Amino acid sequence: MVLPIQRVALVGGTHGGELTGVFLAKKFQQFPRQIQRNGIETITLLANKKAIAMGRRYIDTDLNRTFHPQDLANPQLMNYEQSIAKTIARRIQQEKIDFIIDLHSTTANMGLTIILRSTHPDLLRLAAYLTAINPQVKILQHPPDQNTSYLRSLVEFGIAIEVGAVANGLLDAKLFQETEDLIHSILDYIEADRQGKPLAAPTNFTFYHMLEKVDYPRNKHGEIQAMIHPQLQFQDYKPLHPGNPMFITFDGKDIFYEGEFTVYPVFINEVAYYEKGIAMYLTQKEEYCFEVQEE
Amino acid sequence: MVLPIQRVALVGGTHGGELTGVFLAKKFQQFPRQIQRNGIETITLLANKKAIAMGRRYIDTDLNRTFHPQDLANPQLMNYEQSIAKTIARRIQQEKIDFIIDLHSTTANMGLTIILRSTHPDLLRLAAYLTAINPQVKILQHPPDQNTSYLRSLVEFGIAIEVGAVANGLLDAKLFQETEDLIHSILDYIEADRQGKPLAAPTNFTFYHMLEKVDYPRNKHGEIQAMIHPQLQFQDYKPLHPGNPMFITFDGKDIFYEGEFTVYPVFINEVAYYEKGIAMYLTQKEEYCFEVQEE
Repeated sequence: MVLPIQRVALVGGTHGGELTGVFLAKKFQQFPRQIQRNGIETITLLANKKAIAMGRRYIDTDLNRTFHPQDLANPQLMNYEQSIAKTIARRIQQEKIDFIIDLHSTTANMGLTIILRSTHPDLLRLAAYLTAINPQVKILQHPPDQNTSYLRSLVEFGIAIEVGAVANGLLDAKLFQETEDLIHSILDYIEADRQGKPLAAPTNFTFYHMLEKVDYPRNKHGEIQAMIHPQLQFQDYKPLHPGNPMFITFDGKDIFYEGEFTVYPVFINEVAYYEKGIAMYLTQKEEYCFEVQEE
Repeated sequence: MVLPIQRVALVGGTHGGELTGVFLAKKFQQFPRQIQRNGIETITLLANKKAIAMGRRYIDTDLNRTFHPQDLANPQLMNYEQSIAKTIARRIQQEKIDFIIDLHSTTANMGLTIILRSTHPDLLRLAAYLTAINPQVKILQHPPDQNTSYLRSLVEFGIAIEVGAVANGLLDAKLFQETEDLIHSILDYIEADRQGKPLAAPTNFTFYHMLEKVDYPRNKHGEIQAMIHPQLQFQDYKPLHPGNPMFITFDGKDIFYEGEFTVYPVFINEVAYYEKGIAMYLTQKEEYCFEVQEE
């Protein structure tokens, strides 16, 4: 089973303030040989150049929500991000890209998270491999029907790397290096696979499946009435049990998680999600087991 | 020795993205009695409303660099922040404010820092008191000649509270509560002083005196060529010895501190200072001893 991958796109700056990806992309544009492998060609893109220059997430609208096929085909949608989405989509197609690595960072304590665009078995095997060589790596999945408007959704083999916690506009050397190592591991895996010498992946691995989003408590004007509880802040991927504190009001009153079963919150207190009405996503922790081939 | 303070201004949102101050100011505007004390009246200001609404540090220019008396008197300087600086300065004067608490946050790991506008002995005694009741509190001083363009410089008794590390646009409940506690301690101290029952302050305390700023290594185009070294990231107020690593290039090469004596860096990797050419400030750690009154 050889991954049908020949051309990889490494994308930084889909969100302008997420400097880890911006500076990694700039580095690889300067030293492109570092990301070439036998039989694999990798191109580097700086996605939202105007937002990068301004140090902002976006100019008109979140670029990473503009890649729905219907929107790409709609000539009416032509604000700044909608326009560059069309250009990026065209380039990905023209360049015959079959694997996308979209580099992001988050103010949530997500460590080294890989979000998968699909549950293609080959992509799952890559994910299993990455969790095995670095136990810090976490694998996250959106429900399939919500996977269509992201940049990574332009190809079957698309992933986003989300690293954090890091403030927007900040270069964190440790996360920069860890992200770089992860990119090299991915490229090495793809290369070995193409050469018919696949790297060993474990027969099972843990992943987190997104269930639902939770908003901050708000008043009728939409104003936030409580903060993430100190006991939950930075606790991404840790179990949240029914009855655990979730929020705290400005007067110090606890608000508890009233779900019926234990969940694993992620994107806790991601700054860019305040405006999207998301305080966190709740996920379910699952074990994926590959079918063992009979000898 | 009674502090000549009757009217306090508590200011939030001098920088729009620093939500700790914004939400504390909003809370106290809703519940003003929480910050009233016997003999002391406290007003609350949201300084940069447009930047708060946009979730940005500023619109045209950094508001907290627009309070130099010459600039306030210059009718030519009328961009958004220059205009509101004039309005704020007028209000502070009209309201006969004699103490300013300006609430800030930082992406540097500054804990609970108090920046003093002057070295007035009464202000130093308040600083000594605050470090005694909470050992987390750090006292920081700019050189006197660089203390004129900040909002706090509108009065003799002016302080800024800088809390961090926290991302811009993020509400951190722990820092919110710690900042609130600090505000109450300051108001309690002023109240006790006015009532002739001064709260006991230690006879000496530690403070940090700013020496110089250090920029990131840059190329001739002004582009950053190295990041804060992982060993220095988040190590604000910790000793940096000659020969210790300070930066790391994108290729992993260490750059060392070449000074002749040990310093204590602060504002390490503050996001808003990239554009100001500041990677950190170096400070000297000093012990201030009050003259002991003979009985």
